[in-house]
Amino acid sequence: MNISKRVQALTTSPIRRLTPYATAAKAKGKKIYHLNIGQPDIETPAQFMDSIRKFDDKVVAYGNSQGELPLIHAIKKYYKEWNMDFEDSDIYVTNGGSEALALAVMTLCDPGDELLVFEPYYANYNSFARTYNVNINAVPTSAEEGYHLPSKEVIEKHITPKTKAILLTNPGNPTGVVYTMDEMKMIVEIVLKYDLALIADEVYREFVYDGEYHSFGYFKELDNNLIIVDSVSKRYSACGARIGCLVSKNKQFTTEILKCCQARLCCPMLEQVGAAALYTTPTSYLQEVNQEYKKRRDTIAAGLAKIPGLMSSNPKGAFYVMVKLPVDDAEKFAIWMLEEFDVNGETVMFAPGNGFYDTPGCGVDEARLAYVLNCEDLEKAMEILAAGLAAYPGKK
Amino acid sequence: MNISKRVQALTTSPIRRLTPYATAAKAKGKKIYHLNIGQPDIETPAQFMDSIRKFDDKVVAYGNSQGELPLIHAIKKYYKEWNMDFEDSDIYVTNGGSEALALAVMTLCDPGDELLVFEPYYANYNSFARTYNVNINAVPTSAEEGYHLPSKEVIEKHITPKTKAILLTNPGNPTGVVYTMDEMKMIVEIVLKYDLALIADEVYREFVYDGEYHSFGYFKELDNNLIIVDSVSKRYSACGARIGCLVSKNKQFTTEILKCCQARLCCPMLEQVGAAALYTTPTSYLQEVNQEYKKRRDTIAAGLAKIPGLMSSNPKGAFYVMVKLPVDDAEKFAIWMLEEFDVNGETVMFAPGNGFYDTPGCGVDEARLAYVLNCEDLEKAMEILAAGLAAYPGKK
Repeated sequence: MNISKRVQALTTSPIRRLTPYATAAKAKGKKIYHLNIGQPDIETPAQFMDSIRKFDDKVVAYGNSQGELPLIHAIKKYYKEWNMDFEDSDIYVTNGGSEALALAVMTLCDPGDELLVFEPYYANYNSFARTYNVNINAVPTSAEEGYHLPSKEVIEKHITPKTKAILLTNPGNPTGVVYTMDEMKMIVEIVLKYDLALIADEVYREFVYDGEYHSFGYFKELDNNLIIVDSVSKRYSACGARIGCLVSKNKQFTTEILKCCQARLCCPMLEQVGAAALYTTPTSYLQEVNQEYKKRRDTIAAGLAKIPGLMSSNPKGAFYVMVKLPVDDAEKFAIWMLEEFDVNGETVMFAPGNGFYDTPGCGVDEARLAYVLNCEDLEKAMEILAAGLAAYPGKK
Repeated sequence: MNISKRVQALTTSPIRRLTPYATAAKAKGKKIYHLNIGQPDIETPAQFMDSIRKFDDKVVAYGNSQGELPLIHAIKKYYKEWNMDFEDSDIYVTNGGSEALALAVMTLCDPGDELLVFEPYYANYNSFARTYNVNINAVPTSAEEGYHLPSKEVIEKHITPKTKAILLTNPGNPTGVVYTMDEMKMIVEIVLKYDLALIADEVYREFVYDGEYHSFGYFKELDNNLIIVDSVSKRYSACGARIGCLVSKNKQFTTEILKCCQARLCCPMLEQVGAAALYTTPTSYLQEVNQEYKKRRDTIAAGLAKIPGLMSSNPKGAFYVMVKLPVDDAEKFAIWMLEEFDVNGETVMFAPGNGFYDTPGCGVDEARLAYVLNCEDLEKAMEILAAGLAAYPGKK
C-alpha cells in the first residue's frame, strides 16, 4: 500500500513532539510548567456554554456551508467595532483558524507554487503547504533584529514567478513581534507591486501590549488582495471550539472558497452557536484579558532579563517570546529539562526553536516560550529555567 | 491575485446547487418536498445534548489531536459489537466523514496519482481528489445492472501504475446498492493483487433493509490495506455534529494520519462529548430507525414502480435511490419542477444525476432521490413527481 510522499515529508509539531517525555516525567511525579503550547488558562466566557445549553433543535442537522447566519452577523459586528466593514458574503466560517489557513493556501496556490513566509513562523504553516504541494519560501528574520522584517530589497529577492501569496502572523507566533506601521506599509507595497495575495493571520489582534494595533484590513488599497484568517481560540480562550473564519472582499476568491466549504458540508453547529455568543462578550472582557497578559509579558521579560547569556526578543504581542539560549541544542536541552532536571520536583517545558524554521540549521539554540500561566507560576518557571541553564552540561 | 487551477476545477455540489431555485419557489409560497439532500428528519438521540449540557470545563481547551479518549473508546466498543476488533491507536476522530475522506486521499496519493471509484459516486469524492490534485478513474456502473459492480476483468482494465486506492461507499450513496458477498470478495482480491488501499466509506452500515450487512472489516486478509471511513451523521441523525473517524490497522498509515491530525490541532470538543454519548445509544434505537427507513424504502419503491417510463434501481441500503427518468435532461426537469410546476402549491426537489458521474454525458437523465421524509410525505412526493413527469414539456 502506498503512502504519499507529501505526508511523509510532514514534520512532527515542535509544540507537541516532546509530549512523550513530559508524560514520562509526570509519571515520575514531576510537576511541569507548560510553556510549550499556546493554551491559555483564562476561563472561557460563560456565554459560550450558556448559549449551547439552550440549543434545543430536535435534529442536529447540516447547517450552511458558509457558516450559520447569527455567527456571520456576530463576526461582522465585531469587525465593525474594529472599524472594518465587511458584508455577509465576505465571511466564511471554518474549522478553526487551521482550516481557514488550509483553504486559503489551496485556493491561492497550485502544486509547485510558492508561499512567502518570514521565519521563524508558526510550524503548521509548513504542514498546510506541504499537504497541498506548495513550497515555502522563507525570508529569514533574526533574534538580533528582534524578528522584525528585513528591507524591501531583501524581501523582493525572494519573490519568484511562482510566488502567489505572502503569509504572516501579526501579532507574531512564535516571536511576539508586532509589525510597525512602516513594516506594514512595505508589505502592502510589495503585495500590490507583484499582485500577490496577503494572508494575514490576525488571531492575536487583541493581544498587543504597547501602543495601538493596526489590521491589514485598514489598508483600503489592499481590499482585493487581502485574506484575513481569524479565530475565537485565543481571543475568547476557546481553543477547543475550533471555530475560525476566512474573510476577504475579493469576490473571485470567496466564490471559490464557498465551493470548498460545500465539499465539507458545514462546521459543527453547537460550537457555532457558542462562538456567536462569544462575540457578544463585552469589550471589557478583552481589555481585562489584555491587561492580564501584559502583566505576564512583563513578568516573563523580567525573568528572562536576569538569565545570563540568554537573548530575548522584546515581545509586544500575542503570548509568545522567542529566546536564544546559551546551549548547544535547545531540543536536547528541552529533553534534558524533562528527563534529568528539576527544582524541588518541578521543571519547565518549552518548544524547541528549530521547528519554527525552514532553513536547515536555523533556530537550533532558540526556543519559544508561551506565557499562558499566571504571574506567580511564570516567576517560578523562569527561576527553574535559569537554574536548568546553569546546570545543563551542554551550556555554551 | 492568483486563484489556483485546482479549486477552479471544482464543480458545485449537485445536492446543493439548485438551492437558489428552491429559495425562489419558497418565496412564492410553494411547499417543497426535499428529496435532494441526505438530511434525515429522525430526532437526534437525547443523549447528545444531555451529555453536552453537563460539560463544565472552565476552559474549553485544545484536546488530543487523535480524538478524545472517551470517544475513541466508545467507537472501539461500537466496532466490537459489529465483531471488529480495533485498538485505540487504530482510531482517529475527524471533522465528519468529510475530513476522514480528505485525509485518507492525501495520505495515500500524491499529485497525479489515481483513485479508482465506481460511478455514479458521492460527488464530494471528486472535490477531495481535485483539491489534492489526485485524478479520479471512474469505473462505470449502470441503472440497467442496478448499479452493481462490473466483472473483475473490467475493473482491472482501469488499474494503472498510478492507481493507489479504491474508494467506495457500501451501502451506496447515491445508488442505495449493497454489494453482495461475491462483489466484496472480488474487491478484496483486486486490492490484494495490486497492493492498493481500500477506502471503505461505511457510514450507512446500519441502513441495510434486506439480508445481512458485511463490513470490509470482516476480511482479515485486508487488515493492512483497509481504511474505514465512518461518521455519526447518518447513524444517529447528527449531521451537524461533524464527527467522523478514520480507522485502520496499517501502522504506517496511522502514524502519518496522526501527523496530519496534529497539523489541525484537534476536533471540536463539545461535539466529541456528544458523539461519545451517541455511541452509548441502545442498539434498539438503530433497529427502530432501520425499520422506519425500510418502510420508507418500500413506500418510495412502490411509488416509483407506478411511474411510466421511469427505471429505478432496487435500493437495498442507505437512504437513496437512483432513478432514470423519461426526460431530456434531469437537471432541466428539476429546475422546471421548482420554477414552473406544482400540485396544489406543492412540488418536489431532487439531485440531478449528472453530478454523480465523472464521465461526460453520463447520468443526464438520472436523478438521486433521498428518502428522508416520512411515508405520508413520500407518497405525496411520488404523486407530484408522477404528475410532473406527465406534464413536463421535455419528456421522452
